[in-house]
Amino acid sequence: MNITVPKKLLSDQLSLLERIVPSRSANPLYTYLGLYAEEGALILFGTNGEVDLEVRLPAEAQSLSRVLVPAQPFFQLVRSLPGDLVALGLASEPGQGGQLELSSGRFRTRLSLAPAEGYPELLVPEGEDKGAFPLRTRMPSGELVKALTHVRYAASNEEYRAIFRGVQLEFSPQGFRAVASDGYRLALYDLPLPQGFQAKAVVPARSVDEMVRVLKGADGAEADLALGEGVLALALEGGSGVRMALRLMEGEFPDYRRVIPQEFALKVQVEGEALREAVRRVSVLSDRQNHRVDLLLEEGRILLSAEGDYGKGQEEVPAQVEGPGMAVAYNARYLLEALAPVGDQAHLGISGPTSPSLIWGEGEGYRAVVVPLRV
Amino acid sequence: MNITVPKKLLSDQLSLLERIVPSRSANPLYTYLGLYAEEGALILFGTNGEVDLEVRLPAEAQSLSRVLVPAQPFFQLVRSLPGDLVALGLASEPGQGGQLELSSGRFRTRLSLAPAEGYPELLVPEGEDKGAFPLRTRMPSGELVKALTHVRYAASNEEYRAIFRGVQLEFSPQGFRAVASDGYRLALYDLPLPQGFQAKAVVPARSVDEMVRVLKGADGAEADLALGEGVLALALEGGSGVRMALRLMEGEFPDYRRVIPQEFALKVQVEGEALREAVRRVSVLSDRQNHRVDLLLEEGRILLSAEGDYGKGQEEVPAQVEGPGMAVAYNARYLLEALAPVGDQAHLGISGPTSPSLIWGEGEGYRAVVVPLRV
Repeated sequence: MNITVPKKLLSDQLSLLERIVPSRSANPLYTYLGLYAEEGALILFGTNGEVDLEVRLPAEAQSLSRVLVPAQPFFQLVRSLPGDLVALGLASEPGQGGQLELSSGRFRTRLSLAPAEGYPELLVPEGEDKGAFPLRTRMPSGELVKALTHVRYAASNEEYRAIFRGVQLEFSPQGFRAVASDGYRLALYDLPLPQGFQAKAVVPARSVDEMVRVLKGADGAEADLALGEGVLALALEGGSGVRMALRLMEGEFPDYRRVIPQEFALKVQVEGEALREAVRRVSVLSDRQNHRVDLLLEEGRILLSAEGDYGKGQEEVPAQVEGPGMAVAYNARYLLEALAPVGDQAHLGISGPTSPSLIWGEGEGYRAVVVPLRV
Repeated sequence: MNITVPKKLLSDQLSLLERIVPSRSANPLYTYLGLYAEEGALILFGTNGEVDLEVRLPAEAQSLSRVLVPAQPFFQLVRSLPGDLVALGLASEPGQGGQLELSSGRFRTRLSLAPAEGYPELLVPEGEDKGAFPLRTRMPSGELVKALTHVRYAASNEEYRAIFRGVQLEFSPQGFRAVASDGYRLALYDLPLPQGFQAKAVVPARSVDEMVRVLKGADGAEADLALGEGVLALALEGGSGVRMALRLMEGEFPDYRRVIPQEFALKVQVEGEALREAVRRVSVLSDRQNHRVDLLLEEGRILLSAEGDYGKGQEEVPAQVEGPGMAVAYNARYLLEALAPVGDQAHLGISGPTSPSLIWGEGEGYRAVVVPLRV
């Protein structure tokens, strides 16, 4: 055996890879997990064709060349190993008939290896590889998580207008922005972090989810981002040794700035959770097609109501309403999703049933645009 | 409003009905929840055609005749109501256009009622209705739960030999037994509770799951069972006021007693969890068809091994083995399921690769039969 690693460390780090590496794939090589060792480190890697991920663990290790093991049994086994330590080694030379020997406590296994030829080259940049990744920046992982998770919901699930199935990241000297839309509503989040370059990159929404998961495991470390041709690379500073490459979508969002309303006939301030709960309750009675909920905005209150096959419901929520009384209707799901990231106080800017409404919170970079239903 | 009931009580009790009442059904009336009130009580009921359930809550109530409300929005609403109390009443006379008015805090709704004609008559026996339910018994709900949950796993999921998709309950002067089998393995659980009559009843496995859920909510109360023609009724003693009727399957199990081995060439005693964990690990390497795991039984140990497309694995578990060394193989899934209800100490009685093996625990009424794979 030439590699020994604590079971818990291995098991924890594998959970990131477990989400990426598919259990089935048109390319059977994707269902394998790659591993190799250097003096003092075990490196695990995998890909699903959209996201490449590499995890480096401190380990008692001599050098071991790259091998591919069947990922699913490896994940299953490591989770349930009986010992505190896991020992790994090659049972014969790689190539045909090569096997990875794994033992822990009284358990021993030999996993058949796949030939590494044909496995895709991972796109994670090597050290100072400025050539392929000319644009680089660093930002706090927690801030990046905030920006991504606030807008993710607004990305489209439809094939139609494929670009909207991604989240657009905008780097500029003014700051960093994440934005998502499905053509009917839009969410953006601004971070006041001036960037040294100007660029836009659209990351598929599902890859954003994996990116968020990796960033959340970063424990507050800085995230290093590097933009290359068609790829965004992410590395976490510090000991965790996680590197990730995300294939970008082609193109960029159509200009969305003109749909963000700047002035409103009516401004509303309301307790966020009270409004969300009322929308949730009343919308149980909504019609199943538009999930329509009607808002009557009057001095001191919002009166919500909905009516559908099951019957009708209404609820009143106290609110500060500045401006003339007004009736406006929304798709309850869109309204709820736009309100979800808003904290204690929700702000609404409304100009009537035919103009987009703006929703925002307090002191955060979040803004959401929701188009009302025709009354 | 003529009914007032604490929201939490209503919400808790609805959760039982929520599992029974289907959200879609070939019979649309099944998707409705029935309710009526008597002086001091609100009664809710529902059915899925297999299981009827009626729940009685203490409530500030005047009498209200039976109405049917759409169940799904009612469940959703009640879970999320803002107030501590819920008020219910009829907004107009039952019949066409009738509505149930529900209010709580600032929320108000009117749910459209369905005409109650055509709703199936529930099979729960009324009080001393000895005519339709001549056979009656009472047993501790916790014991009944134990018997049912120990054997449930062995029931079949296949259409083939439909009777095996049920759990057979056997009442006799010797005691009570629950038994399940799919033709390949069998599990039974004996309760030393002599019954005043002799009868067998096969309850569909899915209905058993609902029965277990209701019994678990009984908080140790006695369960009253009553057998009628094609139906088993269950009522819980005490305040909870839950009554249930389960439609039985036709027929009874073929005689299974002859497959239960009485004598063994080899007896094994082993730590239950150690064996289960080892089977779980080693079987990751099993072939995907038979999930075959090989056991070599020798003095002082069981050596488990498996081999499949991914490679091979083995593990040793210390054990007391009485008898000659022997090799035997099982479907790992069947072995694990048979071992799951066994506690700290597992006992195995084995007579070779062509005879059924018996598995049991310590001091419990549980016994399982597993047929080995041919070596």
